[in-house]
This record gives sequence, structure tokens and C-alpha cells, in this order.
Amino acid sequence: METIQTQQEYSIDFLQEEFKLLKQLIKQSKQGTSKVINFKTPQDLENHIDLNIPQQPTSDQQILDFLQKVGDLSVKTSSVHFYNNLFGGINEYSLSADYLTSTLNGTIGNMETSSLYRKMENILFKTIAQKYLKWESFSGIFSSGGSQANFYGIELAKYWKFPEKKYTCIQNLPEIRIFTSELGHYSLEKGSILMGFGQDAIIKVQSDKQGRIIPEELEKEIQNCIKQNYTPLILNLTCGTTVYGVIDKINECVQIGKKYNMWIHIDGCWGGHMLFLDEIFQKNSLVSTCDSFAWDAHKLLNVPQQCSMLITQHTDILEQTNGVEQGFFDTEDGEYKENNLDQVDQMNQYSKHVDVLKIWVYWMHYGSNGIEKLIRDAIDTAQYFSSLVKQHKNFELILEPEYVSVSFFYFPDSFLKRKEKEYDNENFWNELHKIPPIIKGKMVEEGCMMVAYQKQDQKQYKKKNFFRIIFTVDKGKEDAKYAFQQIHRLGQNL
Amino acid sequence: METIQTQQEYSIDFLQEEFKLLKQLIKQSKQGTSKVINFKTPQDLENHIDLNIPQQPTSDQQILDFLQKVGDLSVKTSSVHFYNNLFGGINEYSLSADYLTSTLNGTIGNMETSSLYRKMENILFKTIAQKYLKWESFSGIFSSGGSQANFYGIELAKYWKFPEKKYTCIQNLPEIRIFTSELGHYSLEKGSILMGFGQDAIIKVQSDKQGRIIPEELEKEIQNCIKQNYTPLILNLTCGTTVYGVIDKINECVQIGKKYNMWIHIDGCWGGHMLFLDEIFQKNSLVSTCDSFAWDAHKLLNVPQQCSMLITQHTDILEQTNGVEQGFFDTEDGEYKENNLDQVDQMNQYSKHVDVLKIWVYWMHYGSNGIEKLIRDAIDTAQYFSSLVKQHKNFELILEPEYVSVSFFYFPDSFLKRKEKEYDNENFWNELHKIPPIIKGKMVEEGCMMVAYQKQDQKQYKKKNFFRIIFTVDKGKEDAKYAFQQIHRLGQNL
Repeated sequence: METIQTQQEYSIDFLQEEFKLLKQLIKQSKQGTSKVINFKTPQDLENHIDLNIPQQPTSDQQILDFLQKVGDLSVKTSSVHFYNNLFGGINEYSLSADYLTSTLNGTIGNMETSSLYRKMENILFKTIAQKYLKWESFSGIFSSGGSQANFYGIELAKYWKFPEKKYTCIQNLPEIRIFTSELGHYSLEKGSILMGFGQDAIIKVQSDKQGRIIPEELEKEIQNCIKQNYTPLILNLTCGTTVYGVIDKINECVQIGKKYNMWIHIDGCWGGHMLFLDEIFQKNSLVSTCDSFAWDAHKLLNVPQQCSMLITQHTDILEQTNGVEQGFFDTEDGEYKENNLDQVDQMNQYSKHVDVLKIWVYWMHYGSNGIEKLIRDAIDTAQYFSSLVKQHKNFELILEPEYVSVSFFYFPDSFLKRKEKEYDNENFWNELHKIPPIIKGKMVEEGCMMVAYQKQDQKQYKKKNFFRIIFTVDKGKEDAKYAFQQIHRLGQNL
Repeated sequence: METIQTQQEYSIDFLQEEFKLLKQLIKQSKQGTSKVINFKTPQDLENHIDLNIPQQPTSDQQILDFLQKVGDLSVKTSSVHFYNNLFGGINEYSLSADYLTSTLNGTIGNMETSSLYRKMENILFKTIAQKYLKWESFSGIFSSGGSQANFYGIELAKYWKFPEKKYTCIQNLPEIRIFTSELGHYSLEKGSILMGFGQDAIIKVQSDKQGRIIPEELEKEIQNCIKQNYTPLILNLTCGTTVYGVIDKINECVQIGKKYNMWIHIDGCWGGHMLFLDEIFQKNSLVSTCDSFAWDAHKLLNVPQQCSMLITQHTDILEQTNGVEQGFFDTEDGEYKENNLDQVDQMNQYSKHVDVLKIWVYWMHYGSNGIEKLIRDAIDTAQYFSSLVKQHKNFELILEPEYVSVSFFYFPDSFLKRKEKEYDNENFWNELHKIPPIIKGKMVEEGCMMVAYQKQDQKQYKKKNFFRIIFTVDKGKEDAKYAFQQIHRLGQNL
């Protein structure tokens, strides 16, 4: 054992050195003092870092240099100036939990090896279900991302309506249909393909100018499907659409869904955080009657990815849906069974990364009150940014933000005069369409910030390229002002 | 910004304190000096750690104390004395990569934010495909676990045979059937349920005494299905069965699968590492003609979970299977497209944890030669343990290990005399069946080691409880000897 110990001391030194690098990365991200992106084309990357898999061992110093380069060449999603995807930021307390999780290399599986983690998961699910969603009964599962959490929702709905189809092919079923907003997330489509319903099973319901399902259109589509002998199985309501970040009209839609005996799933991956605010819940109080809820804690809160979960009001359905008889691993754990703690049968994978500790320690650090304040502050920052947009002639707000996403057009000076006269002219918009990629290109070259832009086509509304900036909880008003100024600086003279 | 910076310095101090705890945990695990498990019942856990979600913030010191307790109360899967699941151990270099991954909080998605990670993934897939599987063409994807990697295999097979069923329900298809060993992993069943084929679509083919599919039985079952108008879609061959750790007779089975035009998937999650050894590949050379291969780098190698991947010879099929048109995020990335690097359309989730860095840095540390040696040494350790078993009257080897799993019966002294006379007596075995849980219970109470036991029922062979010990690369001969002695010490006088 002597040699093992000697080698161990050595590796601890290595970790100590790496930790210096990590601290530097965290500090730079938090303070926004490093480039968000050190741009290289994929082709060019290999000129800056050696990506050959070596035949012989690499020295510690070479590995440290390599890690340093990975840090340099990676997009700093944790920078306060990163607004590109629907997540960002790193909280050191949550990060410390992730370090611990990786070090312990635990797993969620049977009680024998995961009782503490499963306890935490269950207490967390209980809090979310009872305190925020106002559900009495619950069970839940962590998944490896928001899409996977939505998949669990679809799976449960199928079992709920057609339990026998666990065993036999969904052949001979009436064809099922899944209803979602035309601006809902594409994971519904991916899930429908995966589960054998096919992409055509997704009915994208026409949505209003804000991107919310129009309840009358929803009912029309359902009736239309029934006429064609399809079975309306699931109503997916989006709480925080991908671009605009708005909530579907939950109360009105739920009433329609219930009327047709559908499973109602809330895709709250991006904006489920909103339901944690009392006044928002009140407006959407029929959430309390929905069947399942998907939530990504890592999206608005600055928790490391992934921290995704699916919670349902139906206590035994996860096990009913996914349980298969296994010849092994159902041994002595039986003695220690506690309600829903042994999760082997509830999930569709066995050993998996432990995600609960990240949100747990985060929650400890802020407390429930603190989490609510974080959410309110983030919305506040978005509203501050939107007020800057409204006051400035080169910017045009697309809709009032109710969450932390702000969508807006940017007009360089050269477009300002034309805008008055040509606002209804398609040609004008086709030209404006080219502006965001140019601004983005400049940003990326400088590495000063990153923000998403996109066009958006609805059945009734088409929008050429516009920016969508999101204010996750790590961003403050100073950061918002900086981002606003950068866009204007880079775009004004185009 | 002043306050943000001040808060930041504070949190770095916190991380510094946590790092001391991590180093201690790593050292204890490596040296095997701490308990593998500090056993508490789920009910009792809450007496030892405060699991209330607080309303108000928790102090740094309290959070550190909490993390310390989580460490104390968690099963030390990284301990050299942990043999319970099909993974274990922590390599500090790989762990450092995971720390960096969490700190950068990157994602695998579009080229814009993940070009470096996607480059690494592709180079890694290329190495595995071309060097070890002898595939010329390839594409691959990291998944959140071995089960999910197998799911990708099933999904691709379906698209390959019935591409139109991406859009429409699998209704009106001939019912499909999936063939696997009766000792294959249950993720095939979970996948079949998930994908709408139903659990009954899985045909568990009778296997021989070693747990390998019997080729003649396979062909009989296929023909039987065809007679019933079912479509044989997938042949799943297991490379490293869950309990015995053996490889199906790949060459013979592949020939049968090809004859019936089936997609051939290799579930190498547990034992795919074996194919990295030249002589093993030679024996199973038709791997070179198979369609997909699932591999968990984290299982034998001591890489933190998850590090799972699916690699296929079919270059465009991932995108064909999972691509859906998205209105957003397909903007300027187009300019930077390189073969298969932009993965949004290939996967069924968007943002996901970056797993490639863990295996990449591991590989750098050991080199390809080193990885091969690690695998050989682990097999060597298993063979050493099996030699101890064969030489000792209280132990009985079930089969010669060809990988790192050793399955054996343990007979306390009181069973030794009876064994001679009553070996064919069911009553004798029913009594022996109760012994492993007792030994395991003592181990867990002491916390000296953890090892799995199980019964195993095949169609033709039934086995009462026996131990299955696995030698991941972090275990050496001294550890093996220790484990052997512990089992005997705890069991001899029962």
C-alpha cells in the first residue's frame, strides 16, 4: 500500500495547484474582468491547444497547462456578461456542493447507497410541491436536463391513460395528440419522436402576440383532433417560454384540458421559478390541479448544470411507469424501505450523478426568503433594462417583460429616419434582420459580452432578428447597464 | 460593483475551507482509512443531520459543518473497499477536470458555446471507433448514463428501419422485437417501455452457464417471432454482463443478426473496456461490423460519474433521428459548421453537463498505453482474487472470471461438512441463501467494506445468493486480499 499512498500525496499537490486556477476563474467570472469568449473558429482551435490523445503519460505540469488553456478557450458561461443561453453564473456555495458530489461520486439508486441523497430529494420535492405548487401529494425525480424532465411528464401521462401499454406496443391505440404552444419548447417534439408517437402528434396551438396559447384556439384544436378520432392525451403549458419568457394562461387552459380529461404538464424549466412568488401563483392558481411540473433550478438560479426535476401529484406513478422486475439488487434494502426513497424502479436509468446537493446548499445559503428575493431582484433587473430600452430611440421593446427575458429590436442610427416611414415595409425589416448578427460578431471578436438573437415566426406574427437578453440572478443593474451600452456602442454606426 | 467583489472574496475563502475537506475525503478514500459506510437507517439519518430547508440564510460555518456531515454520512463509493456497484474510485486528475467543468459550467449544444468540448468529444469518439472498434466512419454522443446510451441505440435502430416513423405513430408497424440475453441489462426493457414498444417486445434469449446468449436459441427465437409476424429489429449483445461480467459470443451472434437484417447494438457499458485489449477484440472481431456501441468510461476506470457515450458507424443518423426544426439558435453558427460538431439536432436534450473533460484528462494522465495497462492490471487483480477463492475451502468459485467480476459462494464452517452430502439438496441451498445478507449486514455495521450479493435465475440455472465482487482499476491485490479476509472473518462462524 506504500506506493499508493505516495502517489496520493502527489496528486493532492496537483489538486492544490488546480484549485488556484479554479479560484482565478471564479473571481474573473464574478467580476466580469475576463473575456466572455476568446474567439477561435473550430478549425483554428487546434492551433492553440494540443488535442492529440497521447500514447504515453502526460506530466502534471502539462496537464495543468492544458486545464489553463481549456479555461482560456472556453466560453465563460459563468461571466456576468454572458446572456446567451437560458442559464449562467456560478454560486460558490452551490459549486462547493458539486465539488463534494463529484468527490464522493455518489449515486441515486437503491437505498443502500443513496439514502441521504434520496432523503434530501424527497424533502426538496415536498417543499416545492406543498409550499409553492400547493399539492398535497407528490413524488419526484431528478433528471439529466429539462428535456428529460418533460419526457418523464409524457411517459407518466401515457401510463396514466393506457397502463396496459407498458407491456405491449402502442399499436392499436387510438393515435394520441399532445398540445403545446407554437412557442413551446422543442423537447416536446423530441419526446414525442422518442416515445413512438411521432413528431406529428404534437399540435402547436396558435398563440397570441405575447406567445401565450389562445384558449379558444386550444379548444378548437382539441375538438378537431377528436373529430379525426385522435386521443388528446397531454396539454403542455409553458411557464416561461424560451424566447419571451411568458406564462401560458394557465387557469383558462387547465379548465379546457380537464374538460377533455387530459394530463396537464407544466413545462416550468425556464420560468417555473415564477410560481414561487405568491402573486404569480394566485393568478395561476389552477397549477394546484395540474399533474406534473418540470423545473430546472439551474436556469434562473446560478446553480451548476444540471439541476432538473420532474414532480407529479400522483404518488406511485413513477414506479408504475418505469418499474421492471430485476433479478438483482432487491435484496436486503427491503428492510429499509421508506415511502418512495428507493428509486431504482422509478427512473429509467440506474446510477446517476447526484444533483440535489447543489440546490440544497444553495437554498441553505440564501434561505427560502432569500430565494424569493433573488427571483424578485432578477425580475427587477429585467425591468430596469426594459426601462432603458423604452427610453432610447435606437431600441424598441417587443413586449413588457413579466419575467427576466427582455426582447427588443435594435436600430442603428442609419435606420432611425427610415423607421418612421418604412415601418410596414418588408424590405426595411429584411435589412434590419442582418444587424444583430453583425453586432453579435463584433461582441464575440471583442469578447465583451454574449447575448442571443433570433427571428421568431408564429402563425400570425413574424419577427425578423431581435435580441433576447436574460437576467439570471447573478446579474445586477450595473451589469444590465453595461450590456445595454455595449450593444449601442457596437451597433450605433452600422 | 463594489459589494459584489467584496462578497466574492468572502466566498473564495469559503471554497478554500471546503477544499480542505475535499482533500481529506480523497485521502481517506484512497488509503481506505475511513469507514466505507457510517450506517444509519433512513429514519435515523435525521437525528444526525439537520435536514430542514431554512427560511433564513445559513452561515458559512454551518454550511461547512453540513458538508462535513454529508461526507461522513455518505457511502464512500470512492473508497478502495467499495465493491458494491459497477463503479468506484476517484482519480484526482479526472476529478480536477470535473471541478473545472462545473466551474466553467459549460454546455454541449451549438458550436457557439461548445466548440472546444465538441472537438474533444469527436476526437475521443474517433479514437475509440477507429483504434479499438475498427470502424472507419463514426458519430457519437455523450449521454447521462449507460441506460440512456442504450436508449440512443434503440432509437437509432428504429429510425434506420422505419425512418417515416419519426413523424407518425408507430401504430400500423409490424410489432417489433428486441433480442437480448436473459442476463442482459434491464435498461433494454426500460427503453422498450419508454419508446412505446412495450416491455413484451424484449425477448430474453436463453443463455448458457456463463450467462452468454446461446446462438442456436437466438436463431430459434428470431424465427419464432417471424412466424408470429413480428419484426426482429435489434440484437443487443452484452459485453460485460451485470453479474458475471462476460461477453456474449459476439461473432456467432452477429452472423445470425445480420442474416435477419437486424441492427446490432453492443451494450459495453460495463465491459466495453475489454475490447480495448487486442486479443479480446480478435476473438470478437465482428464488433467491427456492428451498428452501435454504448460505453461507460466511469465504470471500470475511476472517472467520476457520468461518462457515458453512444458511438455508431452511421455518420448522419443521430441528426436524422433527433433533429427537429427550431425557430431559434440556428443563426450565425452556420458559418462555423464542421462535420458533426454542432450537436443541437443530434441529441434529445439541449444544454447538458460536459462529461468529456473527465475522460480526456484521465487519458492524458495515463496515455493510451497506460489505460491498457490499467485494464490488464484490474483483470489481473480479479484473477488473483479468484485464485484465493479456489484455494480456500469456505469459498467456491462460480465461474472463471474473464473480466473483473468474481462470483462465488461462501460457506461458513457449519456448512462445510453438510456441503459434501447435501450439495444437490434444495434445503441446504435455501439455508445458505440467508448467509450473504448476514455477512453484508455485519460489514455495513462495521463499515469495513461493501460488496454486492444476489441470487440469479436463468431459464436453466438457478442460483441462490452469492457474492459478486468487482475490481475497478483503483483496487490492487492488497485490497483484494483484505476483502477476501473480511468476508471470511465475518462469515466463518455463522
